[in-house]
Amino acid sequence: MLAVLFGDPFAAMNTVGLVAFALVGASKAVREEFDLFGVAVVGLAMAFAGGVTRDLLVARVPLALRSPVEILLGLVGVALAVGLSARLASPDEHPLTVAADAVGLAAFATTGAIVATDAGVSAFGVVAVATINAVGGGALADVLLDRPPFILFEDFYASCAVLGGVAYWLVGTLGAPSGVAAAACAAVTVGVRLLAVAYG
Amino acid sequence: MLAVLFGDPFAAMNTVGLVAFALVGASKAVREEFDLFGVAVVGLAMAFAGGVTRDLLVARVPLALRSPVEILLGLVGVALAVGLSARLASPDEHPLTVAADAVGLAAFATTGAIVATDAGVSAFGVVAVATINAVGGGALADVLLDRPPFILFEDFYASCAVLGGVAYWLVGTLGAPSGVAAAACAAVTVGVRLLAVAYG
Amino acid sequence: MLAVLFGDPFAAMNTVGLVAFALVGASKAVREEFDLFGVAVVGLAMAFAGGVTRDLLVARVPLALRSPVEILLGLVGVALAVGLSARLASPDEHPLTVAADAVGLAAFATTGAIVATDAGVSAFGVVAVATINAVGGGALADVLLDRPPFILFEDFYASCAVLGGVAYWLVGTLGAPSGVAAAACAAVTVGVRLLAVAYG
Repeated sequence: MLAVLFGDPFAAMNTVGLVAFALVGASKAVREEFDLFGVAVVGLAMAFAGGVTRDLLVARVPLALRSPVEILLGLVGVALAVGLSARLASPDEHPLTVAADAVGLAAFATTGAIVATDAGVSAFGVVAVATINAVGGGALADVLLDRPPFILFEDFYASCAVLGGVAYWLVGTLGAPSGVAAAACAAVTVGVRLLAVAYG
Repeated sequence: MLAVLFGDPFAAMNTVGLVAFALVGASKAVREEFDLFGVAVVGLAMAFAGGVTRDLLVARVPLALRSPVEILLGLVGVALAVGLSARLASPDEHPLTVAADAVGLAAFATTGAIVATDAGVSAFGVVAVATINAVGGGALADVLLDRPPFILFEDFYASCAVLGGVAYWLVGTLGAPSGVAAAACAAVTVGVRLLAVAYG
Repeated sequence: MLAVLFGDPFAAMNTVGLVAFALVGASKAVREEFDLFGVAVVGLAMAFAGGVTRDLLVARVPLALRSPVEILLGLVGVALAVGLSARLASPDEHPLTVAADAVGLAAFATTGAIVATDAGVSAFGVVAVATINAVGGGALADVLLDRPPFILFEDFYASCAVLGGVAYWLVGTLGAPSGVAAAACAAVTVGVRLLAVAYG
């Protein structure tokens, strides 16, 4: 089981991203006083939307439909959010949730860059797919919550994923192994995002 | 021609679903006093949207673009709706249309389950694709009619397709041939839906 | 480089369409007083949306993600629009922009018809994909500009692409080489569109 969840850079980043984004999406829905079914739907939508869009763009069947564990990972994130909401008044503004959002953004920028590179797209394609994978979930969650999509209004959200995708491509083009490129992508994305939250 | 339209479980369910959903979508548009072009567009959109989404999810060219007969079947449904509307004041609320909606829902849940199983997705994937195939057309029709998508508000609509998808997977996993699983999926979906209409 | 940009009918039409639609989309955004980033986003969205949708429908990785030159061609169109806007008060209503819109419509109807034919779809599929390729960019640009999508209101816009797609299929079915069918599609689309602008 650990090999399925963390056996290579893609699997590890995907596992982290699914739990983190399901937690964030479900926390937002808790804040909007959705019922439990609605909380689960928003959490799963935020966890899956980016990856499904990524897979459609590289013309393969979405991993969310093929993998037996993805849905379980999403439900773990939803359960975490429900547990937190019993203890916290505003779970979506808690530092843990803000950190989970930055971590999920970085994890999914990295899965997007890996899949796009394996699909043989151009440098622009790597950055575009990384960014779409990273911000797609948050954008859909905002639509479901009937909010304006904040990724269009916050200056350093999608940009963090763009920089991460550029880092992945640069490090890979310089000849580093894929694991090093993945680490660089995740570190740049989460670092820039946390700096933006702290100082912006 | 009969072999093309009814030669195997997928073809038969697909033929039934296309005519039924085109009839339902066109009837709704008649009720909203769309002109003939608008009636045809809504009818065809309701007939095709679920199957096109299903085919995109399993990474194949939509059958609606490959088959020379799908568009004709959709137009048959539109013509039926126009014919009915000459005789009935509210064609979209007539028992025949309500029954056609339940039959189309069941037929498309079944085509979705068959295509998803052939594509080798997970159990969750089979249920998800069956549901999307079944409710996608009605959701798009409501958007085109500028109504709130009723599939989100009516408790036993999407749920019927979920139960049908589960039935398909269960019966297939127990070793029954694909035709039996298809019959179980269609029977469960249409049965639960008609019960919900009758008692809900 | 000239071979990449104009080496066959698809490449030539694609190059012309990308520059023309990026110019039109960016001009509309200039008119709405978007900032430079917004102008580039709307221009690129108008240039790419139709082709990405086309490629998803025929189940292949979008050319915009594979080709290293597509993004540059889009930026050329955006730069042209910005240059024009320095000299003209209403760049989106200038005859040059109206002509570019008709040319882009014709170019993308033709790329859609070529790709759909190569994918082996039905006659209906060829016309549908040609039309979606041609009007998808304008529809998305209008959504981004928060305007009602004019392709739904203007009688002879999508219809021009439909006629072009029919011309492509007819000429090809009569046995003419693909280049002749492409020329017929482009000529019919741009001709009908310019007549509609002149007399409508």
